Amino acid sequence: MFKADRRDFLKLAAVCSFSQVAGPDVCQAEPENPPEPVKKPQERLKTGIASYTFLKFDLEKTLKMTQQVGISNISLKDMHFPLDSNAQQTEAIVAAVKAAKINFYTIGVVYMRSVEEVDKAFKLGSAIGLKTIVGVPNVDLLGQVEKNVKQYDIKLAIHNHGPRDEVYPVPEAVYEKIKNLDSRIGLCIDIGHTQRANVSPAPEIIKYADRLYDLHIKDVTEKTVKGTTVEMGRGVIDMTAVVKALYKIKYPGICSFEYEKDADKPLVGIAESLGYFNGIMDAVRLQG
Amino acid sequence: MFKADRRDFLKLAAVCSFSQVAGPDVCQAEPENPPEPVKKPQERLKTGIASYTFLKFDLEKTLKMTQQVGISNISLKDMHFPLDSNAQQTEAIVAAVKAAKINFYTIGVVYMRSVEEVDKAFKLGSAIGLKTIVGVPNVDLLGQVEKNVKQYDIKLAIHNHGPRDEVYPVPEAVYEKIKNLDSRIGLCIDIGHTQRANVSPAPEIIKYADRLYDLHIKDVTEKTVKGTTVEMGRGVIDMTAVVKALYKIKYPGICSFEYEKDADKPLVGIAESLGYFNGIMDAVRLQG
Repeated sequence: MFKADRRDFLKLAAVCSFSQVAGPDVCQAEPENPPEPVKKPQERLKTGIASYTFLKFDLEKTLKMTQQVGISNISLKDMHFPLDSNAQQTEAIVAAVKAAKINFYTIGVVYMRSVEEVDKAFKLGSAIGLKTIVGVPNVDLLGQVEKNVKQYDIKLAIHNHGPRDEVYPVPEAVYEKIKNLDSRIGLCIDIGHTQRANVSPAPEIIKYADRLYDLHIKDVTEKTVKGTTVEMGRGVIDMTAVVKALYKIKYPGICSFEYEKDADKPLVGIAESLGYFNGIMDAVRLQG
Repeated sequence: MFKADRRDFLKLAAVCSFSQVAGPDVCQAEPENPPEPVKKPQERLKTGIASYTFLKFDLEKTLKMTQQVGISNISLKDMHFPLDSNAQQTEAIVAAVKAAKINFYTIGVVYMRSVEEVDKAFKLGSAIGLKTIVGVPNVDLLGQVEKNVKQYDIKLAIHNHGPRDEVYPVPEAVYEKIKNLDSRIGLCIDIGHTQRANVSPAPEIIKYADRLYDLHIKDVTEKTVKGTTVEMGRGVIDMTAVVKALYKIKYPGICSFEYEKDADKPLVGIAESLGYFNGIMDAVRLQG
């Protein structure tokens, strides 16, 4: 028999936001004594390193430090993979990454200011066998980019660079320019630069999920242009919301740390950041 | 005006377990697009370093590395604070820790195999002004320990050392021996050694909450005697459950990392462990 009255209803409504009731997520209640989980519901997201992190180190040391923190995916920036490398040099770089048992999954951020630079990046990507390039093409070159993604069947993930970037400050600015182009042109959301523009990255991840091809993860000190990179967990980004968003969209890509602090000695800060991200992922996974 | 009807009520009840409504925990609903949290519901737990972690380094380097990972509480082991230090030496050690802006909150693990060793530890603790000592007294000395905790009003937290420890392998073994003694005799649960005895630490934290005075945190590779310390998040301990248990009992103490891997170069592993613990805490706090 139904005995609830207005007071009971309000009690329920108070603890469980009404707007949620119609949504797909159930309201998560915490058990009194949390049992040991029998099986984890999801795997961790894949993590990588954006090699700009190691801008003061050569490729050999970059690979060694990547190994030291136990990361096995890498995105190489031009100081580690010069775009004008010849075939022999390219082969040597690819071989070195392979020997380190690291997955060389993309290059970038590659600035593309001319048709030649667009073509060069895609030719290089094709020679290496990349599926994605992270880049920043001039807007008037997006037509050329579209030709290339079709020709090479390589995705381009456009990187947003925060409030001082007049073209691509935030994910929306990228999306608006590419939404009607070939779907292989998409986004590399930099959550730090997004937050520096006072835009919370988690909802952006959900909004632009269909075109999200790479991710630069970090934490920043402020939600303003003055924000700088800091050990993840010490800054202002709500990483729990970011991780939940990534699980929600079933993000299949790689979350690459781009740690722009302590450039002379970045390893300890990267390790702390990696630990923090893993901790958030595990807590979110175990809580459903 | 109140417009909800029976159907609305049932809808709410279905997504929000009724038993939770009456309980102290509110039912946390995950928003579609999680908003930035305005205020975090709880602070992080306090973290520290058990200086055994730095057994290959002197006090100066130990303090420096503790600072480097941003930890501000320390428990000093005898290689950093010899128990036979004279007044001048003691003063110098205390001054060095203070100068590093680190809170010197306990000594240990102190083995106490004779009345003299019990007395020495408490006298030293008293001279420094400690509120807690972490130790392992022989069982036949527990009477002497009780006299000392009363005389000095200093707590003794007994450390469990896993399956090879015949006296105090797990928290229960400690608790059973001290439950009828002065309540200032309690536990320093070592979650690694507890897990090595195939006992999940989270329920132990809840069971012995009333006597939990210190905590050694770490992760281990196996739930057996063969388990060794590993970066937190890479092992078998369910840290989400541990953190939830600590929040549940409102643990007021310090969670001290005791990282027994990479003794020659422990900093990177400690940083990863600290990041992981912070990540779990933040995710648990934000999810209620």
